[in-house]
Amino acid sequence: MILKRSWRIEVQWMSEQSMSERSPAGSPAGSSAGSSAGSSAGSSADRTRSAILTAARTCFAETGYDGTGLRAIAVRAGANVALIQRYFGSKEGLFLAAILPRLDVSLLLDGPMDEFGARAASIMRMKVGRGFDPMMALLRALATPSLAPSLSAALSRQVMAPLAARLEGDEPEMRAALILAHLAGYEMLLRVLQLPELAEAKAAARETALATTLQDLADGPR
Amino acid sequence: MILKRSWRIEVQWMSEQSMSERSPAGSPAGSSAGSSAGSSAGSSADRTRSAILTAARTCFAETGYDGTGLRAIAVRAGANVALIQRYFGSKEGLFLAAILPRLDVSLLLDGPMDEFGARAASIMRMKVGRGFDPMMALLRALATPSLAPSLSAALSRQVMAPLAARLEGDEPEMRAALILAHLAGYEMLLRVLQLPELAEAKAAARETALATTLQDLADGPR
Repeated sequence: MILKRSWRIEVQWMSEQSMSERSPAGSPAGSSAGSSAGSSAGSSADRTRSAILTAARTCFAETGYDGTGLRAIAVRAGANVALIQRYFGSKEGLFLAAILPRLDVSLLLDGPMDEFGARAASIMRMKVGRGFDPMMALLRALATPSLAPSLSAALSRQVMAPLAARLEGDEPEMRAALILAHLAGYEMLLRVLQLPELAEAKAAARETALATTLQDLADGPR
Repeated sequence: MILKRSWRIEVQWMSEQSMSERSPAGSPAGSSAGSSAGSSAGSSADRTRSAILTAARTCFAETGYDGTGLRAIAVRAGANVALIQRYFGSKEGLFLAAILPRLDVSLLLDGPMDEFGARAASIMRMKVGRGFDPMMALLRALATPSLAPSLSAALSRQVMAPLAARLEGDEPEMRAALILAHLAGYEMLLRVLQLPELAEAKAAARETALATTLQDLADGPR
């Protein structure tokens, strides 16, 4: 039951074809910079736009935000830099349009909160071994000072608020932030840095420890 | 008692004048690239070398590894890029020489392990409000793919091994990694991203939660 629900979450989080790319180009989710090109765009423009977003996620995940240039994204997408700038305004605009729609945690919260830790840990387990994905791009971008204000605002709105609303007890916002901190640190060491002490640990023990910590944070002070 | 010990740790971790910079230039701790310039260097070369390391820590912390160029470090240090390259070989060599000596956790472990969580949390509290420091440079560099192998090796050797040696019970290496994961995620959201749900939380509640999580990870499965 938990596994089935987790797979659904995984599909939403990890699919290379996000909701925003299937929506009409005139209403891209999470992008404020890309609407100028879209209102009368046909399917060709939609496909180009989608290819740019997919290429951006791959490049930002593989080489980090600072280490990725618009030229590399253009080459991978089969587009050109001028078109990217016309659609998304800037590298920051493209990053926000490509990554922020992936921050929807509503399905992660779709279940009883006394199973939250196990549910989150099972999602993390499924990610291991997949290598790069949009969440890696987000984690790497946490380190870029110029992106901090927009990432912080997006995390507050899209992750902290819905998660805190599900937590009972004192300081739900702070505990939501500590849950995100643990998940971010876990992902950072396991998948970005591939620290052997974590990457080569027994998967079952690692998952149990992760689930326990997340559940304790969700439950609040004993 | 705990506070007094923690201040000592703080002094070692955060001091702008590290052990490596006070040592003779011919034996720089953590640097394999800098020895060519040093064996007969006088005090002027020592001062220049120290100024470069200090400038590097500031620049890497403020603008991230990818976002920092040797030119900016040279300007801040009153040196030139050629000299930096002669001393440290490359940007990566300079980063490793500037940051890795700061990874000594021996004093963090100088006390009973049933106080580990409270001790670590009190150190984190003292860091809050200080803004940038060498640990920020390390956290930001976790996101740079090209540095991952050397950072992972250094963390294993300098942080994971001594910490795991102090943990009782099963899977000490994995639990050491989870402790580092929680600390890294906490610092990343609180000080790099300055997420309001964490930065504006009651400091006492935040510290208690951090201490509890770290202690639970140090104690192992219940």
